[in-house]
Amino acid sequence: MADRKEEDMNPKLHSEAQQIIEYAIGRSLPDRAVTDALKKMNLSGNIYLVSIGKAAWQMANAAVRCLEQPPADGIVLTKYGHVKGPIPGVRCFEGGHPIVDENGLAGTQAILDMTAHLTARDRVLFLISGGGSALFEKPLASLSVLQEVNRQLLAAGASITEINTVRKRLSAVKGGRFAKWCEPAQVDSVILSDVLGDAVDMIASGPAAPDPSTCGDALAIVGKYGLKVTEEVIACLKQETPKQLEYVTNHVIGSVAQLCAAAAEKCRELGYETHILTDRMCCEAREAGCFLASLAWNRPSSEKGEFLPRNNLPTEGEKVPAQNVPVSGRRAYIAGGECVVHLRGTGLGGRNQELALAAAEGLAGLPNVALFSVGSDGTDGPTDAAGGYVDGDTLTALTAQGIRVGDALADNDSYHALDAVGGLLKTGPTGTNVNDLTVLLIDAVKNPLA
Amino acid sequence: MADRKEEDMNPKLHSEAQQIIEYAIGRSLPDRAVTDALKKMNLSGNIYLVSIGKAAWQMANAAVRCLEQPPADGIVLTKYGHVKGPIPGVRCFEGGHPIVDENGLAGTQAILDMTAHLTARDRVLFLISGGGSALFEKPLASLSVLQEVNRQLLAAGASITEINTVRKRLSAVKGGRFAKWCEPAQVDSVILSDVLGDAVDMIASGPAAPDPSTCGDALAIVGKYGLKVTEEVIACLKQETPKQLEYVTNHVIGSVAQLCAAAAEKCRELGYETHILTDRMCCEAREAGCFLASLAWNRPSSEKGEFLPRNNLPTEGEKVPAQNVPVSGRRAYIAGGECVVHLRGTGLGGRNQELALAAAEGLAGLPNVALFSVGSDGTDGPTDAAGGYVDGDTLTALTAQGIRVGDALADNDSYHALDAVGGLLKTGPTGTNVNDLTVLLIDAVKNPLA
Repeated sequence: MADRKEEDMNPKLHSEAQQIIEYAIGRSLPDRAVTDALKKMNLSGNIYLVSIGKAAWQMANAAVRCLEQPPADGIVLTKYGHVKGPIPGVRCFEGGHPIVDENGLAGTQAILDMTAHLTARDRVLFLISGGGSALFEKPLASLSVLQEVNRQLLAAGASITEINTVRKRLSAVKGGRFAKWCEPAQVDSVILSDVLGDAVDMIASGPAAPDPSTCGDALAIVGKYGLKVTEEVIACLKQETPKQLEYVTNHVIGSVAQLCAAAAEKCRELGYETHILTDRMCCEAREAGCFLASLAWNRPSSEKGEFLPRNNLPTEGEKVPAQNVPVSGRRAYIAGGECVVHLRGTGLGGRNQELALAAAEGLAGLPNVALFSVGSDGTDGPTDAAGGYVDGDTLTALTAQGIRVGDALADNDSYHALDAVGGLLKTGPTGTNVNDLTVLLIDAVKNPLA
Repeated sequence: MADRKEEDMNPKLHSEAQQIIEYAIGRSLPDRAVTDALKKMNLSGNIYLVSIGKAAWQMANAAVRCLEQPPADGIVLTKYGHVKGPIPGVRCFEGGHPIVDENGLAGTQAILDMTAHLTARDRVLFLISGGGSALFEKPLASLSVLQEVNRQLLAAGASITEINTVRKRLSAVKGGRFAKWCEPAQVDSVILSDVLGDAVDMIASGPAAPDPSTCGDALAIVGKYGLKVTEEVIACLKQETPKQLEYVTNHVIGSVAQLCAAAAEKCRELGYETHILTDRMCCEAREAGCFLASLAWNRPSSEKGEFLPRNNLPTEGEKVPAQNVPVSGRRAYIAGGECVVHLRGTGLGGRNQELALAAAEGLAGLPNVALFSVGSDGTDGPTDAAGGYVDGDTLTALTAQGIRVGDALADNDSYHALDAVGGLLKTGPTGTNVNDLTVLLIDAVKNPLA
């Protein structure tokens, strides 16, 4: 999974990290959850299957195996490299992500054509996963206009909620508009959530969900970030989205909470005292790394509410006082969510890689401690890595290569820094997309002073 | 403690926050610890008492009560408003903090005069607390030069380690130089730590500790932040500090770890399941607030490693899905440390207030949840507040007053925002200084879905 030589890092922790990632992502694959959801839905009649997002192929493949007969028609629209083979009765399209491209638009148009003349006897089985915002798109303005607004929103560090509030109004399919298009057919959507809190109107920009955001919200975001937009865009932002959808049901089948729970299960199996801190982490990625690294320095004695006896007399020139020791015991801290990155440099990286790289400074010098952060979809930012892995030796390894963490972060170049020390985690496309997992592993020797 | 009307906030949580702060700071007062330390030290002979920092008066007052006879001479040098009365045989000086001023220099000169001609039979009882860096100062360059370098370091967001590495070399008393000045007298220092990890060379810039930092380190910091300094300053930075001190002992008697432990004790007494996350929190203050607020959204079911049954069918227009609920039960999360703030605006505030204000957004809408952050010295930044208190209603209260959290943070104006909604915590000078305490209190109703 990583390029760094095994002898350079703690092999036990590195192996455990790989086991935790494999297990947590494996438990978050949509296959079983899709199957369970469909059994409860009692689908019949003319079924049109529409599956969008990074997990679209995996979800459609599972769904078709459940159906008594092949769908009347079906389309998968996913990211490049994510189609893993043919599915009976289903056409597969691939398109650009995170930036919309012409192939995505072509796939979207095929879906709109397929669902153009549905009747009340038709049903749409709509499988939605994260990444659908970029893949499933028919711009009301031109593609280049949409791409430019999108670029500005990402570069400004807008939240996914803000990005989607704007994008819904620049689109013919988002913000409930696709479900409206399918009327009077019933639309049953099955959703793998990559949005913190699982708001169905936000996942893939909610093509089948009533939109609680307003034109006023969208215009306020333009103002907040000082986006440079044309009159045509402003006109789109003033067109309201559907607030009522009569023929829709939405079923959420997976989320980052389940990803964290699965990681916790594996950590406990590996003997860690395990704490899930949150499944809504959403702060700046590098600061989350700094914060989480500080947890490795916690002293267990203070947890008991007792005062440590303090009688340290540092000898001359001793840099690290005796009580400056890590927490003892075997502990895992888990945080799930989606951090943000503010692009200021021109380097390569992703939010998970930035988080991990920032943690390298905080962990420096600690033995038997590691932190990793991965995107459950297997792709972190515009890179071929799922995330990053660092331990107490990473900073020394970086320094030996002439790489300064501060410089790499300032240039948003976490990928190359981690790559230089074997700190990249690579899984390839996983078939799911339920946001990010960050784990701090502490396998410390007993604190001699505790 | 706060100005906001009690009916506007959860009175139970607000009262508990006050109790936790009072208890934790009370347990961190140096009186007992100084007494215990002095008993072990078997002081005799001509004792010269020197006490510097925000807790200087409190420490000196406790020490003098322990001594069998009054000191031969003694000086307290503390911040304005921190002298609480006369101490037999001790002269009290007050000076500027966090910016050095002429009164601080006068107090320092008095200390240097008092210790100018000591012999091997004299002993210096040297009581050190945080704030000593600014108060105990004799600049090698002029005061205005020192103030300007200091201002640039603070504005650039330099860490306290970096600030002290530079300041040691611009000073005749820091970085072990004061202990060198007292030779051949024995110097016994008793230290209340406000530095994460309790490195004695960093607390008050280590006037009695061998300096592990080098001239090269100091020059690198100038380069890192692009400080604008004169040739005179560069010449000072090239003068090395003492690396060996033969006649010194250093005793650390209190730290943020103890502050956290005391807070945890009170939280447990109040019935909270209590977790000390770290005593080394050092990331950007507002991001720590965002991260900690996300802990209030954690779902307890996921902690058991089980998967929640998911069958939510949000009704039309429903904005918050059913599983979007806070953690249940009664929990407290504690983080100690010293966050950083990058000054970009012109407002008023401090790191604790910024942390709390940033958390207001993450907690918005949650019932029975509160977060507070306070400086144990009672003064957060250049304000009369010790820190800030927010809960799930704070954002609404701010909005009602036309205050946007993002705008207030952008202007570093957390003080006025919190003041408008009764979110300031005011304790006055406390007599101790062992860094900051942040506590998240969750007193949630049972999650109906768990």
